[in-house]
Amino acid sequence: MADQLFERMALIGVGLIGSSIAHGARRQGLVGHISATARSAKTREIVAKQGIADSVFGSAAEAVAGADLIVVCAPVGVFKEIAAEIGPHLDPGAIITDVGSVKGSVLRDMAPSMPDGVHLVPGHPVAGTEYSGPESGFSELFEGRWCILTPPDGTDQAAIDRLTTFWQALGSKVEVMDAKHHDLVLAITSHLPHLIAYNIVGTADDLETVTETEVIKFSAGGFRDFTRIAASDPTMWRDVFLNNRDAVLEMLGRFNEDLSVLQHAIRDGDGDALSAFFNRTRDIRREIIDAGQEIDVTDFGRHEGAGDS
Amino acid sequence: MADQLFERMALIGVGLIGSSIAHGARRQGLVGHISATARSAKTREIVAKQGIADSVFGSAAEAVAGADLIVVCAPVGVFKEIAAEIGPHLDPGAIITDVGSVKGSVLRDMAPSMPDGVHLVPGHPVAGTEYSGPESGFSELFEGRWCILTPPDGTDQAAIDRLTTFWQALGSKVEVMDAKHHDLVLAITSHLPHLIAYNIVGTADDLETVTETEVIKFSAGGFRDFTRIAASDPTMWRDVFLNNRDAVLEMLGRFNEDLSVLQHAIRDGDGDALSAFFNRTRDIRREIIDAGQEIDVTDFGRHEGAGDS
Repeated sequence: MADQLFERMALIGVGLIGSSIAHGARRQGLVGHISATARSAKTREIVAKQGIADSVFGSAAEAVAGADLIVVCAPVGVFKEIAAEIGPHLDPGAIITDVGSVKGSVLRDMAPSMPDGVHLVPGHPVAGTEYSGPESGFSELFEGRWCILTPPDGTDQAAIDRLTTFWQALGSKVEVMDAKHHDLVLAITSHLPHLIAYNIVGTADDLETVTETEVIKFSAGGFRDFTRIAASDPTMWRDVFLNNRDAVLEMLGRFNEDLSVLQHAIRDGDGDALSAFFNRTRDIRREIIDAGQEIDVTDFGRHEGAGDS
Repeated sequence: MADQLFERMALIGVGLIGSSIAHGARRQGLVGHISATARSAKTREIVAKQGIADSVFGSAAEAVAGADLIVVCAPVGVFKEIAAEIGPHLDPGAIITDVGSVKGSVLRDMAPSMPDGVHLVPGHPVAGTEYSGPESGFSELFEGRWCILTPPDGTDQAAIDRLTTFWQALGSKVEVMDAKHHDLVLAITSHLPHLIAYNIVGTADDLETVTETEVIKFSAGGFRDFTRIAASDPTMWRDVFLNNRDAVLEMLGRFNEDLSVLQHAIRDGDGDALSAFFNRTRDIRREIIDAGQEIDVTDFGRHEGAGDS
C-alpha cells in the first residue's frame, strides 16, 4: 500500500483503462473514494454491480463534484464536449488528466473550458490489450509500462509531481514530453502500426482467390499478430486517426515511400537489397528486448500458460 | 511413441525447423537413423555436439545416401542446387520433401533433378518462431499447427499418405493443396505481413524527428508486435520474396489500394468510414480464436509464464 494521494477520484468513462486505474488505485490505496460515470447505461450498471467505483453517476458533471483528481478515460473525440460539461463543476486545485492516445488535441479541446486554479495535465499510459470494456480491466495493466505526461508550459509543478507519483504507484515509469512530440512518437510506435494492421486484415477479408477459412486456418504464419492489433476498440482508434491526422499522414507517407523501395526490389529480384533491409530490422528487435519492453521467451504465438500477471 | 515410419531420415539444413523435426521424430520414434548436413561448419558442429542427428556429413550427397526420407530445410533459393547435387544419390522409393514457405518454386527447381522412382512431395509446416538456428528447435513446434503438402499431379498416393502420417505424428494437421494456390494463400497470411513488418520497422529506424530510443521505449503501443515478425531469418525471407514474387506483388497491390482508401478517409476526417472499417476487422480476430489458431488469453505482449511448450 502506498500513501493516499487523492481524496476523491472521478473517472469519466470506464473501459479497459478506466477500470484498470480503479482496480490499481484501490489496491494501492491511492484514493479515498472513486466516483465514475460512463456514456452507456450498461457500462454504468457493470461498474456499479462489480463495485469498480464507489459511486456511479448518470452524468460527468455529477461525477466530478468534489473530486481532486479527474481522469477522463473516453475516446478523445468527445473530450471537447466533456470539458464543456464538467468545467463549471470542477473544484479549484483539482488535477484533471486523461488517458487518450493523442495529446495535442486534448489541450486544444479541453484547455478552453478549464476554470482558473484547475490543473490540466494530459497523460497517456502506453499500455493496453486488444480487449475493451469495464470487465477487461485489471490492476497490473500499467506495471513496467511507460506513462507519458504532456503538461502545457506553465503548469503547476506540484500538480505534475503528484500525478507522476500516482502513476508510479500504479507501477508505471513516467516521462514528461511536449504534446506535439508525443503525437509524433506515438504516430510511428502505435498509430501507424494499428492502421497497417487494420488495413491488411481488411485486404485479406476482401480476397476472392483465397477463402476466409484459409486465411484463418493459416494465420499462424504472421497474419495472426496483425489481427490481434486490428481487434482493438474501433471508436477509440477512429478518434486517434481523426485527432492525430497530420503526424499519422506524415508517417504513412514515409512508410509508403519505403514500401515502394521494397516492392521495387522484389519486382527486380534484387536479393541483396532485400537481405540488407531484413538484416537491419532484426537489430531493432534485439534492442527492444534489451530495453525490457519484451521478454525474450519463445511462445509461438500461443501464449500458453500466460496468466493475467 | 508412434510406429517407426522411415529407416533413415536425411536433413539437408538444420535450422529452427530442421532441428525441431529431428527432436520430434526422435521423441516419437518415427525414424531409425537421422543423418544431416548443413552449409556452415559451425551448424554441423552444433548438430554433432548436441546429438541432434546421429550422423553429420560435409555434403548433401553423403547425407542422403541410403535415406528413405529426405527433408530439405534450407532457404528455398538454394533448392535447385541441392536437387542437382543429391539427385544422383537418391535411392528408388525414397520420399523427398521440404519445409519451404514457397511451393511453386520447389517443384520448378527440384523436379527436373529427381530420378525415376523417387517421390517428390513438397511440404510447408506453417509454424515457426522469430528465432533461427539449430539450437532454437524443439519437438513441440508443430503441435496443433497446419502442415500443407503440395504433391504435383500423379504423385504416388502411398508416398503422400506416409508423409501425412509422419507430420501427424509430429502433432500437425495436414492439408493437401495445389502449389500455386498455396503460394497465393501464404502470400496474404504470411509473406505480406512479414514484408509490411519489415517495412515499418525500417521506416521507424530512418526517422530524424523521433529517436531510436523513443521508438524502443514506447514500442508497447503496437510497434513491438511488428518487430517480432521483422526479426525472422533474413535469408529465408529474401528467398521467399524472390520466389513468390507474383503472388506477393498482387497482394501488395491490393494492400496499397486499401491503404489509399484509409489514408483518404483520415485526410478527409471521414470518421464513419474509419469506424466501419475497424469494426469489420475485429470480427476476423474472433473467428481466428474460434478456429483454435490462438488462445483467447490476455497476455499484454509480455508472455510471462509462457514456457517452451
